[in-house]
Amino acid sequence: MSTPADINDREEGLAFQPKFDASGLLTCVATEAATGDVLMVAHMNDEALRKTIASGEAWYFSRSRNALWRKGESSGHTQRVVEMRMDCDQDAIWIRVEQQGAACHTGRQSCFYRKIDKTDGETRLSFVDSDRLFDPNLVYHPKK
Amino acid sequence: MSTPADINDREEGLAFQPKFDASGLLTCVATEAATGDVLMVAHMNDEALRKTIASGEAWYFSRSRNALWRKGESSGHTQRVVEMRMDCDQDAIWIRVEQQGAACHTGRQSCFYRKIDKTDGETRLSFVDSDRLFDPNLVYHPKK
Repeated sequence: MSTPADINDREEGLAFQPKFDASGLLTCVATEAATGDVLMVAHMNDEALRKTIASGEAWYFSRSRNALWRKGESSGHTQRVVEMRMDCDQDAIWIRVEQQGAACHTGRQSCFYRKIDKTDGETRLSFVDSDRLFDPNLVYHPKK
Repeated sequence: MSTPADINDREEGLAFQPKFDASGLLTCVATEAATGDVLMVAHMNDEALRKTIASGEAWYFSRSRNALWRKGESSGHTQRVVEMRMDCDQDAIWIRVEQQGAACHTGRQSCFYRKIDKTDGETRLSFVDSDRLFDPNLVYHPKK
């Protein structure tokens, strides 16, 4: 159990005390430093966090592949970290990055390429900022 | 199991198909519309998501309190939603908001009021944009 003193120290102190969830992960939001656009939401385990801090390049932990992952290791679309911030309870990280190429595996700059609209009582998506900057078939499954 | 056709539909289609996690939650990132700054990372269950879409004000689901929560219901620091975006696999939402007052329960504009520094091999936090816009003791625990 966290005591009030623990909570106060984590929220108001300057000690780095990341609070990983039951799966050993933090949530990480990456934004493009130049524009403020949210590029992606992903997760970091302790090793990804340490490698990101040490290298200045974004590393994540893929829940679907259950593996550490250097962003851009397949695609070349790396993220250079400009600033890292910790949130109040130290369970989420915000990184401002310079994105090489595009952040999303679908080829778009950002994973958030659809907005949510409500018209006539129905909720739908519509594309916005959805131009592809690369063809994922060529990047991830190149012909031999 | 998701088939490739399901995944393609979720990523490239315009149907609203939020993918809640095992706890019934999506991750939500709120940014200040005017500045692009990340204000907070929180969660929405199906009801919070529907109420946010219907009302144009941010609702969340608090994991610690296990309760639906209208942002600002205690503090008055509501969030008017300017735009909502869905990510590629529909398990994360980005909302651009106009924040009334301050987003963080500590009284700061953003929950991300400390940056991560590495100096002499040691990782520490330092305050940045950390002025308090309100006193949480007065807002959450007013004297009778």
